[in-house]
Amino acid sequence: MQKNSFVPGRRVFLVSAGSVVGSKEKKGPLGSRFDFSGDDRFGKETWEKAEAEMQRLALGIALRKAELVDAELDLLFAGDLVNQCLPSVFGLRGYRIPLLSLFGACSTCAEGLLLGALAAGSTVRRAAAVTSSHFCTAERQFRMPVEYGGQRPPTAQWTATGAGAFILSSSLRDARRTDGDFVLEITEVMPGCVVDRGVTDAANMGAAMAPAAADTISRYAAGGGSLEDALVVTGDLGAEGSGILVDLLRAEGIDIGKNHRDCGLELFDPEKDDVHAGGSGCGCSAVVMASLFLDDMKKGLTGDILFVGTGALTNATASGQGESIPGVAHLVRFSPARRSDLREEGSQ
Amino acid sequence: MQKNSFVPGRRVFLVSAGSVVGSKEKKGPLGSRFDFSGDDRFGKETWEKAEAEMQRLALGIALRKAELVDAELDLLFAGDLVNQCLPSVFGLRGYRIPLLSLFGACSTCAEGLLLGALAAGSTVRRAAAVTSSHFCTAERQFRMPVEYGGQRPPTAQWTATGAGAFILSSSLRDARRTDGDFVLEITEVMPGCVVDRGVTDAANMGAAMAPAAADTISRYAAGGGSLEDALVVTGDLGAEGSGILVDLLRAEGIDIGKNHRDCGLELFDPEKDDVHAGGSGCGCSAVVMASLFLDDMKKGLTGDILFVGTGALTNATASGQGESIPGVAHLVRFSPARRSDLREEGSQ
Repeated sequence: MQKNSFVPGRRVFLVSAGSVVGSKEKKGPLGSRFDFSGDDRFGKETWEKAEAEMQRLALGIALRKAELVDAELDLLFAGDLVNQCLPSVFGLRGYRIPLLSLFGACSTCAEGLLLGALAAGSTVRRAAAVTSSHFCTAERQFRMPVEYGGQRPPTAQWTATGAGAFILSSSLRDARRTDGDFVLEITEVMPGCVVDRGVTDAANMGAAMAPAAADTISRYAAGGGSLEDALVVTGDLGAEGSGILVDLLRAEGIDIGKNHRDCGLELFDPEKDDVHAGGSGCGCSAVVMASLFLDDMKKGLTGDILFVGTGALTNATASGQGESIPGVAHLVRFSPARRSDLREEGSQ
Repeated sequence: MQKNSFVPGRRVFLVSAGSVVGSKEKKGPLGSRFDFSGDDRFGKETWEKAEAEMQRLALGIALRKAELVDAELDLLFAGDLVNQCLPSVFGLRGYRIPLLSLFGACSTCAEGLLLGALAAGSTVRRAAAVTSSHFCTAERQFRMPVEYGGQRPPTAQWTATGAGAFILSSSLRDARRTDGDFVLEITEVMPGCVVDRGVTDAANMGAAMAPAAADTISRYAAGGGSLEDALVVTGDLGAEGSGILVDLLRAEGIDIGKNHRDCGLELFDPEKDDVHAGGSGCGCSAVVMASLFLDDMKKGLTGDILFVGTGALTNATASGQGESIPGVAHLVRFSPARRSDLREEGSQ
């Protein structure tokens, strides 16, 4: 079995992250941690334009925190759930930065971070990864018109309204500008294979994605990757998918039960927020990673994190043609480094 | 002005390419050069499944030519024009290779080659880039039902039915297995910025994309990139966009007139094939590069090629909301190396 994990060719630092959310997410348990929030229109005429605006804002916030201007970034990786990634294109076209757009469904945040780390780990100095989702654009596109008020089964997840931006750099000088006692690095990445277990229920994305997450994590472990010293953070399996993942891995002799969190279960309150199996969407893992998990790591509250971004690969035409819903899961390992250790390495 | 071009961190070779086309493309001027052709269904029930099958076949052909099996590839970059890149996912899910899917509209072939070169130029040993388009899936998605028989204005392009796969490797041993007197390398890449000149005519993608191609080429030249010793191959501006590109560059003092070819103008016969302004779609540049241009380079018939893949970033919702159509263009520089020179460098 292939491991296919890659260590960046040189150190890659997370310089800053920006998070922008809608009103429901702001009212949730992580509300106080986000950088910016708005209503679900962000002053625009359409939901699609609102989603684009969230991407623009998230990158702007990340740039400001990093004390950089757009011309100092070499490359953007961006994506969302909308057909042809247009919120990314329209949201980021005002920045004069080369753009490579991606589609990995809800795994797109991890896909962007993975590619950003590969790029900054070789010849690209700085790259950013930006992703978003919006409840209303996703409903319009994948499910029913929002006005229809269709009932949602307990396995359904709630697409988060939010955008996250992450600035990666190979420069020690950039890394020193970050806040917190610890500087964050991406130390390993592993792209995932498409895994199709024949799930056809579009209201149960957790079941479609969990086998892909299990495949990536077990390939990582089989190749010698260390799980024991790291928190496994999936994004976004929700309650249904998280249970399946833990069971699938246990059957392979891997126990992540006590060491696993899921972005979809952190963003909303399962009792109060009426989101059924939890949050989803590539904005969900983006804003939860950008705020909760990476902030905690900067404060020294967590060790390594294996961020496993999961995506369900489907569209309305494929569902109508009776296709199953394959999943994919990409792994990004974040590691904290003491700021004082960084200083000792001299300047760049 | 930023150059933002990147030289791979180590030599990246094009080991093989596979091309699969539909019946109309097979009857065109390049028909005899393609590896495989079928009708527009490829034995499948739907056009979407046919497009997926073309991707599967193209990668299989490229693997066979490279004398590799799927487990020997580390990474796939793949994309197409369909919502959520599903032909790529369904076509390639049978291969057990990690998949990162991309959306760059018709620029996706160049985007995949660019990322493949960045990856193989750092810590990834081998990567493949696979892209496709299908006339009928694209019409269904971006324009009118095919059965409607809508009239097409002279500026409209014809989305090609085809898929191309390219295998890139950092291994000299792999490079030696390629056929031809010359071994091909990717020696430089430059991702493009999104350029929006306010074009809103969905039947004139050439006009939407040409400013992006001009932007990328002029940034490349301004940063010291050499145009004089290279053939500029755009994909796919068609007749309308090619004329605009030449004019835009001439206004900046750059004359590519005699040194420019366009994949969209090579695939079909402008007199016989009734394709108006020429071919388009990310399958068009993929199959024309995989057959005509890179084959000629392997025979020593051309020097360096600057492949500038162009994409028009739009969808049906954005058009309905009155949005303009931004363009993007990514540059990939192919250079031939004499096989005999390669041998002298010893084995890897």
